[in-house]
Amino acid sequence: MALITLTTDFGTKDHFAGAVKGAIYNELPDANIVDITHQISPFNITETAYILKNAYKSFPKGTIHIIGVDSELSATNKHIALLLDEHYFICPDNGVISMIASEINPTKIVEITIHDRIESSFPLLDVFVQAACFLGRGGSLDVIGKEIQSYKKTFEIQPKVNQEKSIIIGNVIYIDNYGNVITNISKKVFNEIGKTRDFVIKARRYTFTKIMNRYNDVVDFDADDVRQFDGYKLAIFNSANFLEIAIYRSNLKTVGGASTLLGLDYRDTISIEFITKEKASFVPV
Amino acid sequence: MALITLTTDFGTKDHFAGAVKGAIYNELPDANIVDITHQISPFNITETAYILKNAYKSFPKGTIHIIGVDSELSATNKHIALLLDEHYFICPDNGVISMIASEINPTKIVEITIHDRIESSFPLLDVFVQAACFLGRGGSLDVIGKEIQSYKKTFEIQPKVNQEKSIIIGNVIYIDNYGNVITNISKKVFNEIGKTRDFVIKARRYTFTKIMNRYNDVVDFDADDVRQFDGYKLAIFNSANFLEIAIYRSNLKTVGGASTLLGLDYRDTISIEFITKEKASFVPV
Amino acid sequence: MALITLTTDFGTKDHFAGAVKGAIYNELPDANIVDITHQISPFNITETAYILKNAYKSFPKGTIHIIGVDSELSATNKHIALLLDEHYFICPDNGVISMIASEINPTKIVEITIHDRIESSFPLLDVFVQAACFLGRGGSLDVIGKEIQSYKKTFEIQPKVNQEKSIIIGNVIYIDNYGNVITNISKKVFNEIGKTRDFVIKARRYTFTKIMNRYNDVVDFDADDVRQFDGYKLAIFNSANFLEIAIYRSNLKTVGGASTLLGLDYRDTISIEFITKEKASFVPV
Repeated sequence: MALITLTTDFGTKDHFAGAVKGAIYNELPDANIVDITHQISPFNITETAYILKNAYKSFPKGTIHIIGVDSELSATNKHIALLLDEHYFICPDNGVISMIASEINPTKIVEITIHDRIESSFPLLDVFVQAACFLGRGGSLDVIGKEIQSYKKTFEIQPKVNQEKSIIIGNVIYIDNYGNVITNISKKVFNEIGKTRDFVIKARRYTFTKIMNRYNDVVDFDADDVRQFDGYKLAIFNSANFLEIAIYRSNLKTVGGASTLLGLDYRDTISIEFITKEKASFVPV
Repeated sequence: MALITLTTDFGTKDHFAGAVKGAIYNELPDANIVDITHQISPFNITETAYILKNAYKSFPKGTIHIIGVDSELSATNKHIALLLDEHYFICPDNGVISMIASEINPTKIVEITIHDRIESSFPLLDVFVQAACFLGRGGSLDVIGKEIQSYKKTFEIQPKVNQEKSIIIGNVIYIDNYGNVITNISKKVFNEIGKTRDFVIKARRYTFTKIMNRYNDVVDFDADDVRQFDGYKLAIFNSANFLEIAIYRSNLKTVGGASTLLGLDYRDTISIEFITKEKASFVPV
Repeated sequence: MALITLTTDFGTKDHFAGAVKGAIYNELPDANIVDITHQISPFNITETAYILKNAYKSFPKGTIHIIGVDSELSATNKHIALLLDEHYFICPDNGVISMIASEINPTKIVEITIHDRIESSFPLLDVFVQAACFLGRGGSLDVIGKEIQSYKKTFEIQPKVNQEKSIIIGNVIYIDNYGNVITNISKKVFNEIGKTRDFVIKARRYTFTKIMNRYNDVVDFDADDVRQFDGYKLAIFNSANFLEIAIYRSNLKTVGGASTLLGLDYRDTISIEFITKEKASFVPV
């Protein structure tokens, strides 16, 4: 039974997502179709990559992920299909895959060539569905396209580290449903650069000297009323292992979230300054 | 084939809901997953209870309902799994289950103990999914936790009745997609207190002396143009059997709904005053 | 395995959509349920028809489509079930089917009569689900209702053509997720009236003399920076084959879309004026 996911900027009102599902069931009646999201900001491939990178790994090996963001075929925007981390991706070659695959190389990439037989202004419906269902029936990448060695590389803004390795300068890459602000500073980079040193995180005029593991690490559960901690700000490594600035129990529609309350927006700078202690000079690299 | 529902405050853009579904399919490839909603207001367990209470009963016995609202594990927020009305629920012990189970006692409750083996900042993905899939494969509650006898009781504001049983004072507990305003006064309470007496419902400066069974009971279908009744206000027992103040054919985004047009908000008071008729004194209790 | 789609104005927060799915699985555990959309503007059957007309055709023959918009039973709003283009539809007889079926006649229509046994203020849950599941098990239309020959006809505003066949006057019927503005002028009508003549499309103070086949036909891919074309306005026959006024790579939430940038709203007029060339008089009709 093929498992196919959809990640698009179609929204959930128009007929697009429904039509794509109908077309899949038409080809593969027993497919399982999962909406990752249809709420990508139109044409935003950075958002697409952040969301799909954090979602696809939970799925079984062999899952087929269709990306329908900025997918119109053009001279500079080919359609590709690939095997990456034992998952299939069918997407435009617009850089999105380089952001998903930043740490792993695809096993195999093909440029989809079934277009030769299809003239379409809705490639997801006509081309991607056909490719996905072919793979879902156990077909091989070779049949839907010709193998290519390279694909378009567009990198998210990467965090920068100074030569002394005492400062990491990162950026906001995503704001989630709770208004929490997610940076491009991973736990891995933090640990590699910071080692065990003390640090100060600076986000606009706010500073943090501790990174939580859970949101409720800000709460003193011995307090008379734990609700007093609602609205506390904190730094945390989120479940995707990125540094996140959060407000405890925030609500964007009522009290606000970290993005609105702390004035942090997409692409804003967030830095970490490490404080070298005497003993730090003896820490092995 | 296991049937698993999801009720969360994740929204539909972030990767959370997609990741949870992937993890379920990874464990149980032939599961059926149904989104009840991901649009709960962040951390709002009253909303969660109202929605799930009215949705779960339509599902087959044995369905497994995962609640992902305010589910971070803490000293005061255990994770529980239970059998209630022949349905399974996996949720935080934050009071939500007491609002769903207000009229029925759970058959069996366990405190989930598989945490001993899992360190997680995304318990839905790591703990609830594992518990749900275990139950979905026919596993027993005893294996995922240790039996407990009590759970956190948090009650929605209950309607109050005066000593003479002539007045019910209720509150708005939910505002739906059409802007209709739902109170905590059930048809059952109304009938028990009111018997057959006449009554006046008061909602701010508006009054109603009749409760409809259908929205279009306000329409005179012999009228020249039935559209003249659009925008009429009415009191109705809704399909969940709660007293609702509605506007006929309302639209929150254009003409407005009962909440905006009548100025009724979450937790506002709505009262019913019963008028004792002579014969009422002979009505048996 | 029955395939059942849902098109409603329930939104995705309330319990309605979840309850309906539960009820379907209760009757037909192995059904496949697809949400076309729950985001129809309340009671808007024109939107419903546009969306479902463009979605249903991708589904396999025999799919059962439930329409839950303005479906409360009344003296003037019967419930019907029908076979159209080898698909089943279960819906209120409020005109929506006449807009979906504008070019095809239903094969068979029945007025649903199982109401005789059901008193309901939530007909989708109680009546439509039962009818759908009966059809999904291979049941016949005759059993759920009595055959009728006519149904309510409500037509979308049709484009008008002047007597000289030199001007088509159409209207905006839908605005999509990108803010693109869709008219009721089909490619078929355009070709029949316009033949090969030159033309000017007028939408408020904007004119277009070319209709694109792809959005990126506005882009010169030899340009130094193709992003300079973002925001260009264009006329296109969209994937549903209707004339659409679009902005290349628009985003309603940031830079705006055709609806906001060009000031085009639902029902606004868009006209096409054909320019008769000498040779046009010899073009065969």
